[in-house]
Amino acid sequence: MAHEKTIWPGSTQLAPVPAVLVGCGDGKTFKYNLITVAWAGTVCSDPAMLAISVRPERFSFAPISQLKEFTVNLPPAHLAAELDRCGVISGRDCDKFEVCHLTAVKGEKVAAPVVAECPVSLECRVKNELSLGSHTLFLAEIVAVQVESALIDAKGKFDIDQADLVAYAHGHYYRLGDCIGHFGYSVRRKPGSIVRK
Amino acid sequence: MAHEKTIWPGSTQLAPVPAVLVGCGDGKTFKYNLITVAWAGTVCSDPAMLAISVRPERFSFAPISQLKEFTVNLPPAHLAAELDRCGVISGRDCDKFEVCHLTAVKGEKVAAPVVAECPVSLECRVKNELSLGSHTLFLAEIVAVQVESALIDAKGKFDIDQADLVAYAHGHYYRLGDCIGHFGYSVRRKPGSIVRK
Repeated sequence: MAHEKTIWPGSTQLAPVPAVLVGCGDGKTFKYNLITVAWAGTVCSDPAMLAISVRPERFSFAPISQLKEFTVNLPPAHLAAELDRCGVISGRDCDKFEVCHLTAVKGEKVAAPVVAECPVSLECRVKNELSLGSHTLFLAEIVAVQVESALIDAKGKFDIDQADLVAYAHGHYYRLGDCIGHFGYSVRRKPGSIVRK
Repeated sequence: MAHEKTIWPGSTQLAPVPAVLVGCGDGKTFKYNLITVAWAGTVCSDPAMLAISVRPERFSFAPISQLKEFTVNLPPAHLAAELDRCGVISGRDCDKFEVCHLTAVKGEKVAAPVVAECPVSLECRVKNELSLGSHTLFLAEIVAVQVESALIDAKGKFDIDQADLVAYAHGHYYRLGDCIGHFGYSVRRKPGSIVRK
């Protein structure tokens, strides 16, 4: 089967990536603010760490760099317009929480605000800051996770499908579609098959 | 509106994240191999850079660390079982390309192999390696992108929907679902509206 390829110069074509609302500021030295970030990813399991990349000229850069704390809030699809708006307007000119009718609540472990309307929020402390070019990378430990209690069943299991999260690919926002399988599903033994001891 | 939250200790709950096949080796000092990675993200626009995290005990660690080159291949949903399998089995025991019936083709700019059956492949050169704990982070420049020519229209526009990419969230693989909008859609002026000069 032929798979003819076209070769392009290097560009940011990794997809899908997360589309998240990063909360920053402490309400004192820096006002609470939000910035939309798609350049984000998990970087370590133990300790649990993630990374976000922010342009130094963004209004959110100073609070993240100086306070060394931020939150990563995973918005549900019905907040996609607010998610998009927070990536276009600037906290220099307005209060994004007010403009987007979102509620800032101080984190449990960090001074930065979580977005009450987001079903999952990760509270993060910056461990390392690396200037890469257009963006600066913040490597951060995830010190607490807030999950909407209504999405956790009686057995303590979190139903992520109900969170209705948003992915970003090639300049567009997408809802998650069909679940294909869980990690390890391709090699899972079928019921009744012989398990090698 | 109440949004009662449950607080958990820090854990890797960022979602959705990409689920990609990383190609490594040069076919000489290190055999061609594949490793499934979900701890991946874009980290810089200019230069175009991404990061992947790999456990040092993985068979793919040495070729990536020593050759300082790898590819990131975005699999279509119909290859989800192969994607999953490459995250469970080890290249120490088998040839993953053979086991998964995937075709290794040397990169255009790097010695590492791209997966012919993946509609998008990013060729990467490692710029920095950071040990974070369970995982080591490789920060890499994207030096070329290969796109399946059939997904590019006559105007040169890439139709990512046809690529049918896979997202990973909370231990499960998902297809992308409905497209919600493009970047900036929330503030786009409607046709006929007054544009402030």
